Amino acid sequence: MRTLTETVGLRGDAHRIINRALRDALPDEAVRRALSRLSLPGRVTLIAVGKAAWSMAAAAREALGDRLARGVVITKYDHARAPLPGLDIFEAGHPVPDENSFRATRAAIDIVRPLGAEDTVLFLVSGGGSALFEQPLIPPEELQDITRQLLACGADITEINAIRKRLSAVKGGRFAELCAPARVVSVILSDVLGDRLDAIASGPAAPDGCTRDEALAIAAKYDLKLSDAARGCLAVETPKALDNVENHIIGSVRGLCASAAECAEALGYRPLVLTDRLCCTARDAGSFLASMAQYHAQTRESLAFICGGETVVRLTGAGMGGRNQELAIAAAPEIAGLEQTCVFSVGSDGTDGPTDAAGGYADGGTLARLRAQGISVDAVLADNDAYHALKACGGLIVTGPTGTNVNDLSALLIRR
Amino acid sequence: MRTLTETVGLRGDAHRIINRALRDALPDEAVRRALSRLSLPGRVTLIAVGKAAWSMAAAAREALGDRLARGVVITKYDHARAPLPGLDIFEAGHPVPDENSFRATRAAIDIVRPLGAEDTVLFLVSGGGSALFEQPLIPPEELQDITRQLLACGADITEINAIRKRLSAVKGGRFAELCAPARVVSVILSDVLGDRLDAIASGPAAPDGCTRDEALAIAAKYDLKLSDAARGCLAVETPKALDNVENHIIGSVRGLCASAAECAEALGYRPLVLTDRLCCTARDAGSFLASMAQYHAQTRESLAFICGGETVVRLTGAGMGGRNQELAIAAAPEIAGLEQTCVFSVGSDGTDGPTDAAGGYADGGTLARLRAQGISVDAVLADNDAYHALKACGGLIVTGPTGTNVNDLSALLIRR
Repeated sequence: MRTLTETVGLRGDAHRIINRALRDALPDEAVRRALSRLSLPGRVTLIAVGKAAWSMAAAAREALGDRLARGVVITKYDHARAPLPGLDIFEAGHPVPDENSFRATRAAIDIVRPLGAEDTVLFLVSGGGSALFEQPLIPPEELQDITRQLLACGADITEINAIRKRLSAVKGGRFAELCAPARVVSVILSDVLGDRLDAIASGPAAPDGCTRDEALAIAAKYDLKLSDAARGCLAVETPKALDNVENHIIGSVRGLCASAAECAEALGYRPLVLTDRLCCTARDAGSFLASMAQYHAQTRESLAFICGGETVVRLTGAGMGGRNQELAIAAAPEIAGLEQTCVFSVGSDGTDGPTDAAGGYADGGTLARLRAQGISVDAVLADNDAYHALKACGGLIVTGPTGTNVNDLSALLIRR
Repeated sequence: MRTLTETVGLRGDAHRIINRALRDALPDEAVRRALSRLSLPGRVTLIAVGKAAWSMAAAAREALGDRLARGVVITKYDHARAPLPGLDIFEAGHPVPDENSFRATRAAIDIVRPLGAEDTVLFLVSGGGSALFEQPLIPPEELQDITRQLLACGADITEINAIRKRLSAVKGGRFAELCAPARVVSVILSDVLGDRLDAIASGPAAPDGCTRDEALAIAAKYDLKLSDAARGCLAVETPKALDNVENHIIGSVRGLCASAAECAEALGYRPLVLTDRLCCTARDAGSFLASMAQYHAQTRESLAFICGGETVVRLTGAGMGGRNQELAIAAAPEIAGLEQTCVFSVGSDGTDGPTDAAGGYADGGTLARLRAQGISVDAVLADNDAYHALKACGGLIVTGPTGTNVNDLSALLIRR
């Protein structure tokens, strides 16, 4: 993770808040704390999946020492920082799984399958695992196509996972079945609003709370194009109970918000966390925060309104961006001209959509800067092209991969 | 206006807050106060347009006594409460203007045209005037069609007015030109976020801040179907300065929010006005407020989050509803199961879309009540049919016409 270095003015405040919130959300310390109080009998096999897999595995490896037998780490491209002796590290595709996802997952299955009742699998789970940890029951091309269909139609992460679980040999509790009779201790960094265990990374070690009928209803709702084989998979039920598993959540977006609020307060703002469950469309979340800025423009104290969550983007164009960038750019017209006012939004994993940015920043001068370059926010939103617009006006926030993944942080700052 | 009578529980709190906010927003007292400090030389001709026209005219008539020469009052159907001797009262179509709108507007033009420099026109303006006060420059059928096109494509009220102004003989400052050389004293109840004078009722007596080029851009943005005559009207510029007019705003949504906050505080809530400029989509505003309810579910003090504004509805279905009802029903799934938690939204004019309801109410039990009747919120939203869903679960808020119009009040209440 690259620490944001701007220290001056409102942008500096935004950067300080983001730096602090991301640093506090890093899993290293939380993993160490969890392992010190958990019982991990016998020889430990480590499986780490998700965008934070490398950090979590590195911390666990240090804590376990000799008790660690072997393991597999599966994370997103460019998210592994260094070799971890004794562990096989794979980088793979996200948000669309690829051949490396399947190869890595096969490697994980191969080392847990022979385990006996005396063994323990330490399963380190973080967001992104849905794409990274995958062994499809249908041809990979069709799985990729279905994933793309779901992302494009604006399905939320819970809906996407409900479908993908049934098309997979490892999701929806099936990986825990493959580990049996070994015991599975699952240590989880949550990127799912409300921390539903069966939704985080599609719940490879969690009883599936979603039924076959619900999955079929989602397929109908979005009119998914499915082969007969895929439709057949949707009709197979997933495990509804697992007696070899315990789950422990060690971090979530609530903590991200709390850290941001603490930092804002230290910088002299009166902080208010509005929600840690933001899930409306990105552009409407940006509009909502901007409308608050207009109302509070006459405030005499500095205010920081903080949101955590995961907004959604309705794809209508072919531009480049992510939900955090779209939220920020959507706020620009309504905060235009307001003094010392900004809206920013970042993904805690350091990536936002298929871009190299973590998110976006807009302030009272952003609209004028865009207009000076002939860029219309309406056109940018219609084309979902927030990335290029923010790049043109210096509004991108770039951290690189952070080593954590507890969803997004959005905020409105008004400095007085 | 019918006072809401439920007094028990959370619904009772919501009703008390709505009753109080609407009562404080009635224009009678504000009109009296304004007239006591304004100078109205010579004989006064009264023209009142908008949803609050009757109340405003009644109060002005009482205050002016013998100085009132004559006048015309134009309001929405069922919004005139009784005859007002000396004034001609017309009821007409809203949100789509109809033959009665045109007839009433002709009557108003006929009495101001002969006036001299020694006369004063007291022009009482409230929201809804855009449809009610209209003398089209194109065939009425095409004007109605264009209005319908604009409403259906989700154009906001500012955009709708920018187009309609140029198709009208009275909007965009043109009515003030018709009054000249008489002086025009305009007393305004604002239903436009930010109180832009040229936007309220399409600004019949305000210099038009919107240019010909902007109007043409809006027509292009929504791909409006226009005749050559209509396209020609769009290209004619509107008055950019008026030296016979003074404008006074006597009420707006900010006051509505302040009254709601005061009442909530008296009921034991800690109130926070989030914004008086809410303008995102209705369903996303409902989702945003509901996401706040989830975060604050563990609060130990009662909280009231209050918003004023005017959300928009994207029409995708053929159901019945309004933006306030859609906001409330959209909140229902995310607040489902939360104790003593509700989201409500009402139009201060007492009407919401083409329905007999002012708005909607949803609480932690609404989703279960809907499900018990086989109603899916997803389907309701896809069909824009909030009215029937709320009716089925007892969630409609019905006040009848209130006599005022200062936009919408939305709130999240959490009772502890």
